[in-house]
Amino acid sequence: MNDISRDIDPALIDRFAAIVGDKYALRDQQDIAPYLTERRGLWHGRTALVLRPGSVDEVSRIMRLATETGTPVVGARRPPPRGGGPRAGGGGPGGGGGGGGRGPRFPRAPPTRGGATETGTPVVPQSGNTGLVGAQVPDMSGREIVLSLSRLNRIREIDVLSNTVTVEAGVILQTLQEAADAADRLFPLSLAAQGSCQIGGNLSSNAGGTGVLAYGNARELCLGVEVVLPTGEVFDDLRKLKKDNTGYDLKNLFVGAEGTLGVITAAVLKLFPKPKGREVAFAGLSSPEAALSLFSLAMDRAGAALTAFELIGQRPYDFTLLHTPGVVRPLSGDWPWYVLMQISSARSAEDARALIEEVLSAGLEQEIVGDAVIAATIAQGDAFWNFREVLPEAQKPEGASIKHDISVPMAAIPQFIEKAAGAVQSVSPGAREVCFGHMGDGNLHYNISRPVDGDDEAFLGLYHAMNKAVHDVVRSFHGSISAEHGIGQLKRDELIATAPPMAIELMRRVKTAFDPAGIMNPGKVI
Amino acid sequence: MNDISRDIDPALIDRFAAIVGDKYALRDQQDIAPYLTERRGLWHGRTALVLRPGSVDEVSRIMRLATETGTPVVGARRPPPRGGGPRAGGGGPGGGGGGGGRGPRFPRAPPTRGGATETGTPVVPQSGNTGLVGAQVPDMSGREIVLSLSRLNRIREIDVLSNTVTVEAGVILQTLQEAADAADRLFPLSLAAQGSCQIGGNLSSNAGGTGVLAYGNARELCLGVEVVLPTGEVFDDLRKLKKDNTGYDLKNLFVGAEGTLGVITAAVLKLFPKPKGREVAFAGLSSPEAALSLFSLAMDRAGAALTAFELIGQRPYDFTLLHTPGVVRPLSGDWPWYVLMQISSARSAEDARALIEEVLSAGLEQEIVGDAVIAATIAQGDAFWNFREVLPEAQKPEGASIKHDISVPMAAIPQFIEKAAGAVQSVSPGAREVCFGHMGDGNLHYNISRPVDGDDEAFLGLYHAMNKAVHDVVRSFHGSISAEHGIGQLKRDELIATAPPMAIELMRRVKTAFDPAGIMNPGKVI
Repeated sequence: MNDISRDIDPALIDRFAAIVGDKYALRDQQDIAPYLTERRGLWHGRTALVLRPGSVDEVSRIMRLATETGTPVVGARRPPPRGGGPRAGGGGPGGGGGGGGRGPRFPRAPPTRGGATETGTPVVPQSGNTGLVGAQVPDMSGREIVLSLSRLNRIREIDVLSNTVTVEAGVILQTLQEAADAADRLFPLSLAAQGSCQIGGNLSSNAGGTGVLAYGNARELCLGVEVVLPTGEVFDDLRKLKKDNTGYDLKNLFVGAEGTLGVITAAVLKLFPKPKGREVAFAGLSSPEAALSLFSLAMDRAGAALTAFELIGQRPYDFTLLHTPGVVRPLSGDWPWYVLMQISSARSAEDARALIEEVLSAGLEQEIVGDAVIAATIAQGDAFWNFREVLPEAQKPEGASIKHDISVPMAAIPQFIEKAAGAVQSVSPGAREVCFGHMGDGNLHYNISRPVDGDDEAFLGLYHAMNKAVHDVVRSFHGSISAEHGIGQLKRDELIATAPPMAIELMRRVKTAFDPAGIMNPGKVI
Repeated sequence: MNDISRDIDPALIDRFAAIVGDKYALRDQQDIAPYLTERRGLWHGRTALVLRPGSVDEVSRIMRLATETGTPVVGARRPPPRGGGPRAGGGGPGGGGGGGGRGPRFPRAPPTRGGATETGTPVVPQSGNTGLVGAQVPDMSGREIVLSLSRLNRIREIDVLSNTVTVEAGVILQTLQEAADAADRLFPLSLAAQGSCQIGGNLSSNAGGTGVLAYGNARELCLGVEVVLPTGEVFDDLRKLKKDNTGYDLKNLFVGAEGTLGVITAAVLKLFPKPKGREVAFAGLSSPEAALSLFSLAMDRAGAALTAFELIGQRPYDFTLLHTPGVVRPLSGDWPWYVLMQISSARSAEDARALIEEVLSAGLEQEIVGDAVIAATIAQGDAFWNFREVLPEAQKPEGASIKHDISVPMAAIPQFIEKAAGAVQSVSPGAREVCFGHMGDGNLHYNISRPVDGDDEAFLGLYHAMNKAVHDVVRSFHGSISAEHGIGQLKRDELIATAPPMAIELMRRVKTAFDPAGIMNPGKVI
């Protein structure tokens, strides 16, 4: 580990540390290490200081000091502000991952503000450190400090009559789900990292996951926020209101801003009645067109009771059977495509059962569905979900992969799958499309494994060409190159290079308006 | 009518007119008059020019010219930029209305930019001109031009598979509802003015109405926007995506900005499957607490199938029976409170029927509901809805009124109703609370009629005191003083005086970032 203490003036470090107390000001590189690398090991950074404030007031004082103080750069040469970029690798779970440091194809934009100067100390907010695009990791300069929200972990209030929960940024998602459950309510945000991701990051990345179809993403679940601004001022907008037309929608600027406009310290989130019945089914289908027809059928019959509609291609299905010990084959036969469908009923278990049977019977009768099985027990339903959730992991043994997190209009999904496959083959003949995702939201994790006999390093060398080929198809359908994982460091250059220039210009104006000194998570998003 | 042609340089008027052609550049004050006064006659303005562009390109050229050109002020004295304010009156339908020019209680903030200067020509976008807070009406200076979007009235595309419609700003809401219906889809935004309000205004005001409970307000129904910026540049974000995490949420800044950041020219909106069953019921209850219990019960049993939950106090109920010819009494007995409840089923008419019967039976059994009737026919269901919709009109014969459009957390509704009544009586003993609204959204139209034997003018003289008394109670519950109607001119001063200063500061920064010259609908919102 390099000595990086000289990157930030030691006297300044002491002043920051005094705000939270020595116990919660991490300076030892061993203590700091877990905050510098995310779980897949793709993004690395450096820092001399991790602060773990225990109150909103401490966050506020940290940001005030960060605004007031800057760090004279010690030494002649400044390290590149964007650091080492992601390491080459097989990509991690969840569909983000991969590449970045290998001769970027898109012109590299200057960070809105790179590293510390005399005008302020750059701060990188971090909660559960599970983000997939490097937004929560400091750069390699050593001049950024990490602000961990994990000690702000109180559930301040559950209001069952208003169906709201007021929760701090450091609460772990699963903890919140369990607290809601104990209050006979559902908090529907659900994603693979829920055992360790935290609400602050869920909101800052506008997290998606498997509950979006019926309940919305993190933004739609959020009614109000408490934000510490770069100056340390607190913007208290913790309202429980479903309707509030008093001026511009500031809340939705902070949600999804990946910590570049302010630090979300708490939020009011929506709760829902707990469904009384849940049925999960696996269906085998002949084509994405058939999956689209099944989706339309299910929406028509079940409406808002359709709570999940996940598409799984034959390849990830087979990889899972091959590489995941103990996993059980959901359907006896083989199909080119599979759908995991969930229907929830506000009324009863029997009602959910009747409804899912009705949808699948109609699907079989109309020859949309080839075969289908409804989970016979809760345990089998959980096993179906587990099958879905281990897909990213099951891809790893197949070698290097290049991943995409895209969305297109629902109607375009079959065409996207067809065109993208052609684009993939043109970049790397024999590469294997591993396609699965939240089809009900128009969101696919379109991951590409190297050819069976291919070379990992050679394949990863195609990272930018593959990204461009797939994303060009996405753009041709007016889709999104980041449906749910965000921009962070991973897609910043591409966003700037390919988004409508006016969108970038307006985002820059927002950034400047909220963070004129550029100390909030510089080099991320925009 | 004054001669106001000298307020804008005639040569400049000619240049604007040349963009749209003489036929669509209204200069005659008789032609202009309908654009200067909204339907209740509460807000008045002046202008020398109403432009009716027929394309986005024309809107763009108008805004470019507006940015490039200013109007040297002719004559020594500039009229006050905020004009005459609302006229005193009994308030119009819908719950907005009333007061403004009578010695404002809140310190009057300077407009972000008042009237024309050499740096640009102020533009007031207008679509259906049904807004209730004066946002769409020019000021009295005569230096603002009105930009009518009503000729941008194409439904560009209905995509039934993606469940989206791409629609221009001038499309009338009801036209869109009918087009969706013809495509076997539901567009759920529904409000009293739907026969004349237009989509541009619905989005700019983030309209609410009676469909919000299950489907969300205008913001939640909007997936993408096309906006002409003050400079004339077009921000094209017409995406059909449910998930898109590529940078800051710009869309939601324009939605609800009341035309102060740019001109929404088109949008992509969500469509839904048409429910196959709809049941409407009227219930009589003893208290707001009982209504809250019924809401919890209905949410628990019906979940997302609960598509409306409207509260009606005894007084508006009785006013409607008294003053609305042909209206039929929904329930035989008298109750202190009533609820109009609607349940929609994705499955069948029988299913909706069974569900609403289950909810009401449980309500009667638990002694939450005193009496209830389910509409026996579609016509009776429509009659129940008509009963709800004529409430504001039925209040008029009772004399002057002072209206409020508030929201509080659901759990606080009973306490709000109790405390607000006390506040009202302290301002005007004998004044009559007329309370009804979208209780399922926490949104009440809390309108106050003068005492039975009171004097209209004297009562309206209490406008600001009454507003303050009611809104202070709202604020004590962390509620909103404008749940669905917006800010416009009506509540601008109060917003600025009472919102957290940091919220106002951030809104000002957004305004300056998007409209540095301050030519977009100046003096509105912020």
